[in-house]
Amino acid sequence: MRVWLISGHNLNSGSLIEPAKGEPFALVVSVQSGDCDSYPDENSKEDYNLLVDAGQALLKADTVWGALRGLESFSQLVEQDDYDAYYVNKTEIVDSPRFPFRGILLDTSRHFLPVPAILETLDAMAYNKFNVFHWHIVDDPSFPYQSYSFPDLSDKGAYHPFTHVYTQMDVQKVISYARLLGIRVMPEFDSPGHTQSWGRGQPGLLTPCYKGEVPSGTFGPVNPTVSSTYVFMDRLLKEVNAVFPDSYIHLGGDEVSFTCWKSNPQVREFMKKMGFGSDFTKLEAFYIENIANMTTALNKTSVLWQDVFDYHEKIPKSTVLLVWKGLPPKYYSEMSRMTKAGFRVLLTAPWYLNHISYGQDWRAAYTVKPLNFSGTEEQKKLIIGGEVCMWGEYVDATNLMARLWPRSSAAAERLWSDEDQTSSLTTAYDRLTEFRCRLVRRGIRAEPLYVGYCKHEYKGL
Amino acid sequence: MRVWLISGHNLNSGSLIEPAKGEPFALVVSVQSGDCDSYPDENSKEDYNLLVDAGQALLKADTVWGALRGLESFSQLVEQDDYDAYYVNKTEIVDSPRFPFRGILLDTSRHFLPVPAILETLDAMAYNKFNVFHWHIVDDPSFPYQSYSFPDLSDKGAYHPFTHVYTQMDVQKVISYARLLGIRVMPEFDSPGHTQSWGRGQPGLLTPCYKGEVPSGTFGPVNPTVSSTYVFMDRLLKEVNAVFPDSYIHLGGDEVSFTCWKSNPQVREFMKKMGFGSDFTKLEAFYIENIANMTTALNKTSVLWQDVFDYHEKIPKSTVLLVWKGLPPKYYSEMSRMTKAGFRVLLTAPWYLNHISYGQDWRAAYTVKPLNFSGTEEQKKLIIGGEVCMWGEYVDATNLMARLWPRSSAAAERLWSDEDQTSSLTTAYDRLTEFRCRLVRRGIRAEPLYVGYCKHEYKGL
Repeated sequence: MRVWLISGHNLNSGSLIEPAKGEPFALVVSVQSGDCDSYPDENSKEDYNLLVDAGQALLKADTVWGALRGLESFSQLVEQDDYDAYYVNKTEIVDSPRFPFRGILLDTSRHFLPVPAILETLDAMAYNKFNVFHWHIVDDPSFPYQSYSFPDLSDKGAYHPFTHVYTQMDVQKVISYARLLGIRVMPEFDSPGHTQSWGRGQPGLLTPCYKGEVPSGTFGPVNPTVSSTYVFMDRLLKEVNAVFPDSYIHLGGDEVSFTCWKSNPQVREFMKKMGFGSDFTKLEAFYIENIANMTTALNKTSVLWQDVFDYHEKIPKSTVLLVWKGLPPKYYSEMSRMTKAGFRVLLTAPWYLNHISYGQDWRAAYTVKPLNFSGTEEQKKLIIGGEVCMWGEYVDATNLMARLWPRSSAAAERLWSDEDQTSSLTTAYDRLTEFRCRLVRRGIRAEPLYVGYCKHEYKGL
Repeated sequence: MRVWLISGHNLNSGSLIEPAKGEPFALVVSVQSGDCDSYPDENSKEDYNLLVDAGQALLKADTVWGALRGLESFSQLVEQDDYDAYYVNKTEIVDSPRFPFRGILLDTSRHFLPVPAILETLDAMAYNKFNVFHWHIVDDPSFPYQSYSFPDLSDKGAYHPFTHVYTQMDVQKVISYARLLGIRVMPEFDSPGHTQSWGRGQPGLLTPCYKGEVPSGTFGPVNPTVSSTYVFMDRLLKEVNAVFPDSYIHLGGDEVSFTCWKSNPQVREFMKKMGFGSDFTKLEAFYIENIANMTTALNKTSVLWQDVFDYHEKIPKSTVLLVWKGLPPKYYSEMSRMTKAGFRVLLTAPWYLNHISYGQDWRAAYTVKPLNFSGTEEQKKLIIGGEVCMWGEYVDATNLMARLWPRSSAAAERLWSDEDQTSSLTTAYDRLTEFRCRLVRRGIRAEPLYVGYCKHEYKGL
């Protein structure tokens, strides 16, 4: 098969090119804007039209990102007959994503994921039309990001300073690999909680906890009462801004325990001075507001876990909020309130796929209805997508792929396709079973949905 | 390191051989009986003594099987220092298994497991001192065993007659690979239930179900009322006997539904003739008795699921019974009754490790106490071991290893080591965490127990 790439042209769907003599099949890819050098971003158009006819196919897209989605669809139209000969049925596809943000979170702190495991995930993401890699790169257990401003963070905070770190080269490799697949890389530097590993390389950053009148020797969240914290965070975020081209920076903000802050006399003094009374959510809000302003000053969009909204509705309206708690109707009411307040929202609560159970748990991932909360049409438009979270307590490179796939494929369909056309679990089962065999054929260890077989098994023929 | 193999000698533990000049380390392996050509069997001795001293080590065993276990232990004593140099601490080990039968069941019918996936499992089994591969080779969904007596069984009953079958070569490869690791291969041809796939290649074998007065077109368990069934089973078991050298043949006998038998007028007629009344367990017992007699005639031991004992205590005393149902105290009372009746028993109920749950579910596999049922010392001696079952509803080569390991390692320790010395979950956690990293280093995708890291990660350095 020959693939023709045409840039800047505007072919009509009808004007197919005849395959050259001896060419069994020609695929013409026509991209309106040939800008191949940029990064995909929140406004990237991913629409495409695909027409497959005898001996030829035409893929039209406005952007290279749409063309990538169309090429993926084309590849999924290729079937094999009983003699293993490839063929494509005639078809016409007019396609565009339901939501612009379709993400997967990997947690590289609880377990270090070697770069090849991340790249493999990016491949599988592209097969599933995911377009955002949410890199939860650091957390309590380890700090694998090798910062050029603060090398001690990984030197002392990583599991191992040489073998369990992401060098700047590694990070660029991930970003550039993702870009070629039309995938954004959204970094998360979660604070003020989830920062135990930061403290090892940045003395003075975390709050010293007290036992009575004396420091206990343990540390709590980032200390929001000292100016050195903001000097540090400003410099770190400037580095993050320079290293990661994406316009979103995830600042975290989840699960902050107030116990340590409460124990510390300097913190209590600061609370008094600021007139916060005994409301520690005000202290947390004060901290988040400061670092969100840094992000804004860098012309980037802050992304935050829902906790910040829950205790502090007065965050910048440009912020994107991630709903991660509870089951319906709990997350629905959260989405109602957030969108009513004018925030853009991402849903992840039903897609914590690190959680497993015996049986066909892809069904739960599939039957999610992200827009079923009560709200106006305007509110619904503020749901910009969702993501699968793969937290790392029990996950590393040994079991990552089987735990992600094909259950994430169920979420992927929900995020890309019209809900009306994808609601039957029976037809979804057949489609997903076939698709998972396609993933296996491509070397992805996607686990089986139920009893059955693939024509080409993993480790088999 | 040089390894010296000495056969038939009887070195004293004290008589270590000096390493040759320039040799950094000498490991002398002394085996009393040098019979390397046989297969491991139920009576194989696996004891060994291992003495590690400066520059030298002595491994003594009565048999090659014991020597294999000792070599495995020796390999697990090898550590790496911070500069990756290998070293072994001085130590003395006197070791023998708690139970002679330590098995893993793989189900190659619900999903076909390509031979490389089986061999990889055998490797990991040897690292964990498992010594029986229970090959649940056929079942309802597919019949991948390529029989030379009845080629239609896999031609019509396998998922695919060429790509999803175990040829005689494949079977011999598995048996011979297992032998070199000191692992027995116990085949299971489960009947009279779980035989839907058999019916496709052996018309007349299964019971035609009736809807009222007419056959419904569906089939039930093997038809125990026609002589052709016994002619077939006799020939099949003779083949199994010839192909699989192990002295155990698992005949199945679990989960037989009587609905179809009840619907069939010929079966009801047979029941009347035999004086079974309306007690279909008598019919099942009649069938099992017949095929167990065939196994006995071949000088082999029948293994059966507990169901057969539950409805029919009068099976040959040489039979080995597998307890698979329920939780304590249910399986304890079953074990009491079986051993009281004089049967040898294998425990698998707490080790259905195909079942998963979120979190540290290795703990449940570890805290099993196989001898905690009420019974005499004589009864306890009849517990010959246990096995991990990895049923294939949701498991194929994509996720097999991560689902087996390291949870099966928890069962392995329970089956090999003294219970007294292995009861603390905290020390077991540390030991298992380290051991799982060793498995990962050897290429086994053993999943993590909890947050942490291995010096050498899967797909990493």
